[in-house]
Amino acid sequence: MSPAEHRDAPAVQAANAAFYAAFEQGDIDAMAEVWEHSDRVVVTHPGWPTLRGWARVVTSWDAIFRNTPYIQFVLTNEVVQVDGDVAWVTLDENILQATGGAERDGELAGAHVAAINLYVRTRGTWRMVAHHGSPVGSD
Amino acid sequence: MSPAEHRDAPAVQAANAAFYAAFEQGDIDAMAEVWEHSDRVVVTHPGWPTLRGWARVVTSWDAIFRNTPYIQFVLTNEVVQVDGDVAWVTLDENILQATGGAERDGELAGAHVAAINLYVRTRGTWRMVAHHGSPVGSD
Repeated sequence: MSPAEHRDAPAVQAANAAFYAAFEQGDIDAMAEVWEHSDRVVVTHPGWPTLRGWARVVTSWDAIFRNTPYIQFVLTNEVVQVDGDVAWVTLDENILQATGGAERDGELAGAHVAAINLYVRTRGTWRMVAHHGSPVGSD
Repeated sequence: MSPAEHRDAPAVQAANAAFYAAFEQGDIDAMAEVWEHSDRVVVTHPGWPTLRGWARVVTSWDAIFRNTPYIQFVLTNEVVQVDGDVAWVTLDENILQATGGAERDGELAGAHVAAINLYVRTRGTWRMVAHHGSPVGSD
């Protein structure tokens, strides 16, 4: 990265931290604040097909939040790259979560997801345009 | 995309086509031509942890090519986005492949992978800096 891009990295890291905070809190308004609201946004949740456009992306978060009573992320190997007004963060999501359904009440499960998060800066603000997470060790 | 970025889309599509051609042909030199050779490049093969840096990336391709006697891609839902000197392509990889091992000789298997491919333009040439593919329907 150029010196200017090195200076941009903390703002990208803050956007990325806001993404995982919104996810942990199941806060759809905070999640909406993280994302660009446009046709070009895409999300690929682990094991899911790619969903395109803000309407489908936000609907998927709503569904996930409704079915995830508890989720906690420990993020490792976070690396930020910036090139102009585009930034991407690659990292490992070490997840502890309770999955939905009364029959599994209180049961916690671990998961390991490799993720790439893509951000674009518009009028000074970094917004997520792509999130792709994939299960590690499942293929 | 701006009009200038619309004009860039065909060059990105050509880089992306070269990536899948190199993969189908198991041609490590052609694959090396597609990628930026730098520390910032990353690859996440389906089910694998993220590998960082050109040395690890190219080694992984070599290992995959040695263990993949036959692979064919039918690419669907390919969407190109360009923002300045960064471009990303999202698409579905519909795969028909023969996997290694004499005991499975001639056996073809299908797979469905959701992928995001990230390119950066340097001195007029688009080079891959990230490939992340994940199995659909496996989580």
